[in-house]
Amino acid sequence: MSKDSDLRARGERVIPGGMYGHMSVYRRMPEGYPQYFERAEGCRLWDVDGREYIDFMCSFGPMIAGYGNPRIRAAADAQRQVLDIANAPGDVIVDLAERLVRQISHAEWAIFAKNGNDATTTCNMVARAATGRSKILVAGGAYHGSQPWAARHTKGTPPEDYVNFPTYRFNDIDSIRAAVEAAGDDLAGIVVSAYRHDAGKHQELTDPDFARAVRDLCDRTGAALILDDVRAGMRLSLDASWTVAGVQPDLSAWGKAIANGEPIAAVLGSERFREAAASVFVTGSFWYQASPMAAAIATLDVLEEADAPTRLAALGQRFRDGLYEQAQRQGFGIIQSGPPQMPTVMFEDDEDLKTGFAFCSNALAQGVYLHPWHNMFLSLAHTDADIDRALEGTDKAFAAI
Amino acid sequence: MSKDSDLRARGERVIPGGMYGHMSVYRRMPEGYPQYFERAEGCRLWDVDGREYIDFMCSFGPMIAGYGNPRIRAAADAQRQVLDIANAPGDVIVDLAERLVRQISHAEWAIFAKNGNDATTTCNMVARAATGRSKILVAGGAYHGSQPWAARHTKGTPPEDYVNFPTYRFNDIDSIRAAVEAAGDDLAGIVVSAYRHDAGKHQELTDPDFARAVRDLCDRTGAALILDDVRAGMRLSLDASWTVAGVQPDLSAWGKAIANGEPIAAVLGSERFREAAASVFVTGSFWYQASPMAAAIATLDVLEEADAPTRLAALGQRFRDGLYEQAQRQGFGIIQSGPPQMPTVMFEDDEDLKTGFAFCSNALAQGVYLHPWHNMFLSLAHTDADIDRALEGTDKAFAAI
Repeated sequence: MSKDSDLRARGERVIPGGMYGHMSVYRRMPEGYPQYFERAEGCRLWDVDGREYIDFMCSFGPMIAGYGNPRIRAAADAQRQVLDIANAPGDVIVDLAERLVRQISHAEWAIFAKNGNDATTTCNMVARAATGRSKILVAGGAYHGSQPWAARHTKGTPPEDYVNFPTYRFNDIDSIRAAVEAAGDDLAGIVVSAYRHDAGKHQELTDPDFARAVRDLCDRTGAALILDDVRAGMRLSLDASWTVAGVQPDLSAWGKAIANGEPIAAVLGSERFREAAASVFVTGSFWYQASPMAAAIATLDVLEEADAPTRLAALGQRFRDGLYEQAQRQGFGIIQSGPPQMPTVMFEDDEDLKTGFAFCSNALAQGVYLHPWHNMFLSLAHTDADIDRALEGTDKAFAAI
Repeated sequence: MSKDSDLRARGERVIPGGMYGHMSVYRRMPEGYPQYFERAEGCRLWDVDGREYIDFMCSFGPMIAGYGNPRIRAAADAQRQVLDIANAPGDVIVDLAERLVRQISHAEWAIFAKNGNDATTTCNMVARAATGRSKILVAGGAYHGSQPWAARHTKGTPPEDYVNFPTYRFNDIDSIRAAVEAAGDDLAGIVVSAYRHDAGKHQELTDPDFARAVRDLCDRTGAALILDDVRAGMRLSLDASWTVAGVQPDLSAWGKAIANGEPIAAVLGSERFREAAASVFVTGSFWYQASPMAAAIATLDVLEEADAPTRLAALGQRFRDGLYEQAQRQGFGIIQSGPPQMPTVMFEDDEDLKTGFAFCSNALAQGVYLHPWHNMFLSLAHTDADIDRALEGTDKAFAAI
């Protein structure tokens, strides 16, 4: 019996359904995928049975500079040695807020939290406090966390929880205009993602015309433009992700990669929303923890020095080009979508994901950890050699299916 | 210029209102209290200007076994060395779930999260999924986190966010019966705190008759009894806190002290709610982080070996007795409320907290960090000598006001 199946048997007794959320391999991943890992280093993972993988999920985003990155780890450890939690924060909270305000164009202030969802929810509260209005538009199918307002798809969420969150279609200017009109004088904000990275779908980059239309609608109505940069943040740009489309948000939500996996999230905001941000009461027991803040500063330094978005795009493009060549040569129709830093690979005519699951299972057996229906992530720990080694595995995976 | 005032000036430019939430000294604490700390060890804190304090807030609860407790720190560090985050959890998640299921009487399963609020919100979702109903009763004035459903007091929260959360009066059987009746056949759950620990109020221990009445109402209606043990958990009992009143919850929410300050929260539930728990989608990027889980196991061991609730009660009683004697001798009417492990000290006829603030300011000047209107916390790092040393400070503080 493998260690993984032993742990699954034990886990099934004490964890509902064996595992929960996005890390439930049971309900989400192809055969052969491990439920439990033992070691992580650089861009590599080892499962509890000692199998090694080149990782293309980066812990669903947080890992951007390598598991156990020595410089970031050292910064967190040094902070932990003297102060991690206390009755008030350490000076590192000011250092990090200053750093982000300097780096992110629209930001004049910062609030730190733990979950990306804390950040998106706080953006909503600030937008509502600033405008005195209630309605927040969200794109249908977009993921902004598993709190009730953002989780209309899950059980346990009655309609009242999202009655103030009408939907629009991402990249569809007519749709968002109609939603704004329907919200009338009760529109507090519009939440947008960096791009359309809905799980299980082909990804859509943001149409700059759409971005400008959203900015214009917010300017005309006084609503806040809220950018959820939790998933894409720091991979597409070292500024807010919509900066590449020439559009600045009023409020932005960050998490995942900003501290290379140390648990921290951030809300950044413009001057106009400072007073409202000071008027809402948002907090959490661990939101002021110092070591993830020290890790965040080190991470931002590492990303800046490496020009991370450019480097990650090159790595992603190398992987994408290789997959394209292999699929062409072996006669598979694949659809690669999303930005190269966060590639998504799905098969044509594969509604039930059967081909995608088979391909991923076979890649896994070759030591390449892919995801069949969720965007993947590159990191600075990946080298060209790692990409090439992974492509050897995917070539065999195509051959096997 | 002190380092603290320099940091405040910098912080005011990049943090709304200078600081947010429960760690905003600006809006919450008496004169002289530092906004920034530099070092934490055992039961002691040092502010950025090097002043040393015996701490009675324990970071608002998380610290229960000493800042930087070597055994707990070592467990977290060892885990961090090999695996902290990955694409799925480490085996430590199973170890911790098993440990809690063994230790907490009502628990048959566990889900881990980051914020206490993640845990209380997940309890609500599970209760709603299990019952197919919407309404969750909460005690008026009780704190269950700063997410909108729990934060009707703050700006940015429209009434729809808490329309499904009618209130009752804690310890008032008639009041909760009336609330249950009003909810009719839409009652999904009743949220209770370990005891009435509302900030700014004299604390009220849970009346066992009230606890039994709540249990009975839940049994009769099929609603879930949800115990919010985030703040009091592991200090009153090493089982769920209502166990001391002979009442078991269906779902319980934990956070703060369970890993001595490493960021983790937990939902524990009974068999009846397992299937519903498996049916809701709740997750967060950092919810599976391994090092806080390793810290939690070590913390639970430390607390069990020390019989923490008994030891903390003895320490708290020693402090309480000392304060009582001093107040009597020096002619002050003080009201000490709450359990000795989490003492609250307020002054008679002090609605505006003027006397309390003056007392705390003077105690602070003597190196004793108290809170004028929030419950305080004892830890295993406090010694009888620390309590006696703190009492020397409070004696001088009484004399000074």
